[in-house]
Amino acid sequence: MRDDTYELTLLYDFFGELLTDTQREYFEYYFSDDLSLSEISELTGVTRQAVRAVLQRAQALLRQYEEKTGVVARFREIGRRVGELQGKLEKLAENVDGGARSLVEEISAGLEELKG
Amino acid sequence: MRDDTYELTLLYDFFGELLTDTQREYFEYYFSDDLSLSEISELTGVTRQAVRAVLQRAQALLRQYEEKTGVVARFREIGRRVGELQGKLEKLAENVDGGARSLVEEISAGLEELKG
Repeated sequence: MRDDTYELTLLYDFFGELLTDTQREYFEYYFSDDLSLSEISELTGVTRQAVRAVLQRAQALLRQYEEKTGVVARFREIGRRVGELQGKLEKLAENVDGGARSLVEEISAGLEELKG
Repeated sequence: MRDDTYELTLLYDFFGELLTDTQREYFEYYFSDDLSLSEISELTGVTRQAVRAVLQRAQALLRQYEEKTGVVARFREIGRRVGELQGKLEKLAENVDGGARSLVEEISAGLEELKG
């Protein structure tokens, strides 16, 4: 897995549809299927340099979309805060029982889904 | 306020930075400052038809960004779920007291912030 695969895949999850078909195709070959530039070049009949250029453009666009919208950062911040609230719920769970306890568990499960 | 001002303003909040400067400028005249096409035309020295075309393009782009990313829908869904969890927390608050009650209140406040 490449160094920045995790970050780029996250950006791709949000903004991938804003790329062209070719950019998406090569992106998936490279980042999801882990093919090399040469392998993609052979597969598509396009020069290795051209494959690299498409991939660089795709990555630059994805980063630009995030820079301009901050969407992924907003979702990350939600995930962070949800984690904090889950910590508080765990503390709460220790201090209640019966019906209250099952309510706490329901809320905790609901929070877990928010991260998804 | 125009019929679709609320929806478009929400889209603009997320994707506005992806528009050109001119698209943003006219969008704000029209949707934030509530100027008419003729007023924007006078203000900018551009024909009313050209102003309309820019605004239509900007709206189409904003809708397209949402159609392709579903970002606003995802945030709305989070808001809806947080509302549900807040309902459960209110029920919980009725069934606990003391330290547990103040924890419930902290969690509730944390959930409220998630909507922001």
